[in-house]
Amino acid sequence: MNWVTPIRAYVPEKPLFLFVLSNTATAYIPKISAAGKSPELTDHTPAGDAEIVETGNIISVPVLPITPPYNTPTPAIITRAALNLTGIPHMFVNAGLKVVPEISFVDLMAKPGCDIRENVAVHDAKGIFERAQKLGRDIRDQTDHLVIGESIPGGTTTAMGVLNALGHDGNVSSSSCSNPLDLKNKIVKEGMDASGVEFGSLRDDPLRAITCLGDPMMVAVAGIVSGTDGIDVVLAGGTQMAAVFAIIKHLGINTDNISIATTKYVVDDASANFGELVDELGVPVYAADPGFGASHLPGLQRYEAGDVKEGVGAGGAMYLAQMHGVSQEELRHEVEKICGELC
Amino acid sequence: MNWVTPIRAYVPEKPLFLFVLSNTATAYIPKISAAGKSPELTDHTPAGDAEIVETGNIISVPVLPITPPYNTPTPAIITRAALNLTGIPHMFVNAGLKVVPEISFVDLMAKPGCDIRENVAVHDAKGIFERAQKLGRDIRDQTDHLVIGESIPGGTTTAMGVLNALGHDGNVSSSSCSNPLDLKNKIVKEGMDASGVEFGSLRDDPLRAITCLGDPMMVAVAGIVSGTDGIDVVLAGGTQMAAVFAIIKHLGINTDNISIATTKYVVDDASANFGELVDELGVPVYAADPGFGASHLPGLQRYEAGDVKEGVGAGGAMYLAQMHGVSQEELRHEVEKICGELC
Repeated sequence: MNWVTPIRAYVPEKPLFLFVLSNTATAYIPKISAAGKSPELTDHTPAGDAEIVETGNIISVPVLPITPPYNTPTPAIITRAALNLTGIPHMFVNAGLKVVPEISFVDLMAKPGCDIRENVAVHDAKGIFERAQKLGRDIRDQTDHLVIGESIPGGTTTAMGVLNALGHDGNVSSSSCSNPLDLKNKIVKEGMDASGVEFGSLRDDPLRAITCLGDPMMVAVAGIVSGTDGIDVVLAGGTQMAAVFAIIKHLGINTDNISIATTKYVVDDASANFGELVDELGVPVYAADPGFGASHLPGLQRYEAGDVKEGVGAGGAMYLAQMHGVSQEELRHEVEKICGELC
Repeated sequence: MNWVTPIRAYVPEKPLFLFVLSNTATAYIPKISAAGKSPELTDHTPAGDAEIVETGNIISVPVLPITPPYNTPTPAIITRAALNLTGIPHMFVNAGLKVVPEISFVDLMAKPGCDIRENVAVHDAKGIFERAQKLGRDIRDQTDHLVIGESIPGGTTTAMGVLNALGHDGNVSSSSCSNPLDLKNKIVKEGMDASGVEFGSLRDDPLRAITCLGDPMMVAVAGIVSGTDGIDVVLAGGTQMAAVFAIIKHLGINTDNISIATTKYVVDDASANFGELVDELGVPVYAADPGFGASHLPGLQRYEAGDVKEGVGAGGAMYLAQMHGVSQEELRHEVEKICGELC
C-alpha cells in the first residue's frame, strides 16, 4: 500500500476520453478470450461495451455484459460511472470492428484483425497509423489531457505477441481468473513461426511487429498518440496498453508525457509480469482501487478475486474521476446504481 | 485519501540527497520562526539538523533537536531514518550558514541572509547562483535522481516575500502549530516597501526578488537545479520549495522533470494555501504520510496536531524510502529508534 502519494496538482481543463474498439480473429481461438460467452460472441463485445459506456445498457447486440461463470459485470460500467460523475466528454473510434455499435463513432476504415497464427495479423497497418495520426492532430486542439481506453477481445494475446517481437518479456495478464498463459505462449509461438519472427527481431520495426502479431487497436492508438505530440496522454489499460507504449517507444516517439492508468487488479496479478514490464519500459503507472470488496453486489466482489481485471479504460476513468475530486465511495455507489439498472 | 495511486515504476539507480543549509537574520524577528528555543538559537538549527541526519545526534551546538512547547522532535530524524533504511548517499551544502556543523560539506561561499526588512536580503545572489550551477553540473554525472532538502529558520517568511514579488499568493505554511500569518504578512509588507517592490513587480527578475526578499537557500537550490538539466529533480519541502520552484519557472528553466515531495502535514495545513499555490505553478506534488498517529511516542503524535510539518527534506526522504520498498511501518519504527537514542 502506498503511503507517499501524489496530491491532485491540477485538474485538466479539457480532458477527453477516447475509446478505440477493434476485433481480432485471434479471439476465436478456444479459451483465449474470457470477454464473451463463446468465442464467436466476442465479435459483439466491443460494440456492447461502447453502448454501455454511452447509454448504460446494451442496445443492439446479443451479448450479456457479464463475464461467466460468476456473472461479473463488464468494466464498462466502471467507466460509465466515472464519466457520469465527472461529465468528461468522450468519443468512440472504430478501428476494425466486426460488429458496430448503435452509437456514433469515428471510423478509421480498418479491417478487423486476423488470427496471429496467419502470416498477416493486421492488414494495412501503415494506412491505419496514418489515418489515426490525423485524428490525433485533430483531437490535439480539443484537449489538454487525452485518456485512451480500448475494447478488443483476444487483445492480451496479441499484446504478448508484439511484446515478444519487440524484445520484451510478455507474460501478459488476462481478463480471466485463471490466466491461460501456456495456451497464449503456444499461440504466440505459432504466430512467430508463421511470420518468421524471433524474440526481439522486430525491435526496430514496430509496425511490422503489429502486422505480424498485433491487432488493429494497437496501431490505431499508437497513431493517435503520434499525432498529439505535446499534450498529456494517459493509456488506460493493463498489459495491452504496456504493449502500445512499447510500440510508441520503439517508434522513437517522445514518451515523456505518456503514462498508464490501470486497475489494482492488473498490478496485483501474480500470473503476469506487469510490474517488471513497466519498470523495463520506464513508464509511470497509476493503479486505481475501486474498493469493490466493500460492495454488497457479489458480481462486483468477484473483481477482488481477479475474475475481471480491467478493460474499456476502467483504470483511466477512475484516474480521471479522482482528479475531479470523486471519492472511492462515490464511484462505487454510482457503479452499483448502473449495475442495478443493467443486471 | 487517494484511491488512485502511482505504482513504483522504477527505482532510481543513482539517487542523491542534497541538503542546502542557510541562515537568515529574518529568523531573529520575534515569533517568526519556531525552529529554535529562542530567535538567536535558530543560528544553530541548520547545523544541528545536519549533524542529526549525518550522525543521529547533535555534536557541537547548544540546540535541542526538539520544538517547544511539546518537545516534538525535529523532522531531521525522519530524514535520517529514511537514509538509514535505504543507504542513499547524501551531501551537505553550506549556503550562508552562521554556524557550521562538525561534518563535511560543500561551501558555496555565501553570506547568511539579512532581515528582509532591510533593502538587501541576499548579497551577491548572482555569484551564489553561478557557484551553485557549477555544483549542479558536477553532481549531474553522479546521479539520475536528485532530491534537495533545506534547513533555514525563518524560511517560510522569505518564501512568502519572494512569492509575492513574483506575483503568487503567498499565504505560506509554518513549522509552528499556530501559523503567525498576520505577522508574516506585516514583515513581508515592510520588506517590500523597503525595497520598492510590489506584488508581481519582479515576475521577470527572480534573482532580484531573492536579493530583495529571499534567502540564500533559494538561490543556491535554483542554481543547482539549473546546472542539472535533464535529470529528475525532487524539491523536498513545502511552501519554501514551492517558492524555489516558482523562481526556477520564472527564470525560464525547463521544469518538466521537477516535482515536489513534502509531508501530508503541509498539504493538510488549513492556514496555508499550498494546494492552490502548486496548482497555479503546475508542479506535481507527492505527499508522504509517516503514520505517526500510530506511534507510542507523544512527541511523534504531535506531528498529527500540526506542531511540526516539514523540514530537512523529510517529505522527500520518505518519497525515496517508498521508492526503495520501505513500508510506512518500517519507517516509523526506525524513526522511533532514532528518537529513543536522541531524546
